[in-house]
Amino acid sequence: MPNPTAAMIVIGDEILSGRTRDSNMYHLAGKLAEAGIDLKEVRMISDDHDAIVGAVQEVSARYDHVFTSGGIGPTHDDITADSIAAAFGRGIDVRDDARAILAAHYAKSGTELNTARLRMARIPDGAALIENPVSAAPGFKLENVHVMAGVPSVFHAMVESVLPGLTGGAPLISRSLRVDRGEGDIAEPLGALARAYPMLSMGSYPFQKDGKYGAHVVIRGSDAVAVDAALVELKAAFP
Amino acid sequence: MPNPTAAMIVIGDEILSGRTRDSNMYHLAGKLAEAGIDLKEVRMISDDHDAIVGAVQEVSARYDHVFTSGGIGPTHDDITADSIAAAFGRGIDVRDDARAILAAHYAKSGTELNTARLRMARIPDGAALIENPVSAAPGFKLENVHVMAGVPSVFHAMVESVLPGLTGGAPLISRSLRVDRGEGDIAEPLGALARAYPMLSMGSYPFQKDGKYGAHVVIRGSDAVAVDAALVELKAAFP
Repeated sequence: MPNPTAAMIVIGDEILSGRTRDSNMYHLAGKLAEAGIDLKEVRMISDDHDAIVGAVQEVSARYDHVFTSGGIGPTHDDITADSIAAAFGRGIDVRDDARAILAAHYAKSGTELNTARLRMARIPDGAALIENPVSAAPGFKLENVHVMAGVPSVFHAMVESVLPGLTGGAPLISRSLRVDRGEGDIAEPLGALARAYPMLSMGSYPFQKDGKYGAHVVIRGSDAVAVDAALVELKAAFP
Repeated sequence: MPNPTAAMIVIGDEILSGRTRDSNMYHLAGKLAEAGIDLKEVRMISDDHDAIVGAVQEVSARYDHVFTSGGIGPTHDDITADSIAAAFGRGIDVRDDARAILAAHYAKSGTELNTARLRMARIPDGAALIENPVSAAPGFKLENVHVMAGVPSVFHAMVESVLPGLTGGAPLISRSLRVDRGEGDIAEPLGALARAYPMLSMGSYPFQKDGKYGAHVVIRGSDAVAVDAALVELKAAFP
């Protein structure tokens, strides 16, 4: 059975403007590979209602799981929850269970649960909450879309809350070999090897160091026996 | 006149598998902001013919400029050039001008211009070459799509080859203020300010340091006078 597929949507003007370097995508990609869920596509879009609705509708129809990061805080530019509701034609309002989580959290520090903070309890109808052990304000899952925070520490914690509940396939296994020859010399034997192992993905990532050319050749797949066998052949081809 | 728009497509299994952390997107985002070209969307996809064709067709129709990175080397998984040709219904073959560039480059080091290396001279019909001062093998521009290498040093050099030829708008100006209060307290005054300056984008990026909450509030826009005026008001609201 093929592994389940996934897409990620990174939401935020700060990423597209070049101010902030996203790190959530790299984190999630590694976690999904371990879990045996194939990340097929990532989109980075701005805090724009139509952009979010369009991206969510397109990728949620195309892949088994969708993960979003960003735009679920208390400020005016946090429009992800409303956009997700719109994407699925659902209503959205402050929900009692989410409000109770926020009320308990802010009571501890004597902080007022004002209108802005209450925005973080706006949850689309029918969504399930995603636990946030870092800063309380929950994410949520609606249909096959997991809506999570953009702040990396919170995003990481929400990923840990979500992943154990998903059925993955065989983890992606990856083996690499450094070959100290130019890619142009590696290409032909590597291409033959790739044709011999159609169930594996093989990639060549060139580097130049101290004026010498080389490449890291990476073999990836879910079939550990095939990966190891291909690695043996690769080493024999480039002794 | 609004700024021209752009999208980027990052092509490569090594990104989606979590093996490699992409840096080209962050680099290009900063360069486009300086150039006054609004980066609206980024897609990261795998080395897959149909995925590349689909993404290129969708975003090239939607934005003024498209930039791709990855998949133009000599190995079997380098299928970007053929996929771009297919996306626009063009033929593709080894082209004399590209072959001459490679021949001159490899002659210097006495390296054979073998079949694998010649793949890098495959250029879609009607495309213009993009200079590669680092490792010779050119990128190309077809329609509104700039096809560039994935190796960061080569990608950076190709961006420098391309950007001066594009007509940008007003550069994106960005000013930020650190506010040592929780986002829930920042939200209401910031929302009012955002409504007063509809031509600007305002974002709030929370942090927690030494147990205290705060946020970096960022004001972005092409109108320098408006950005500065809004920053004055923002400072007055959070003295």
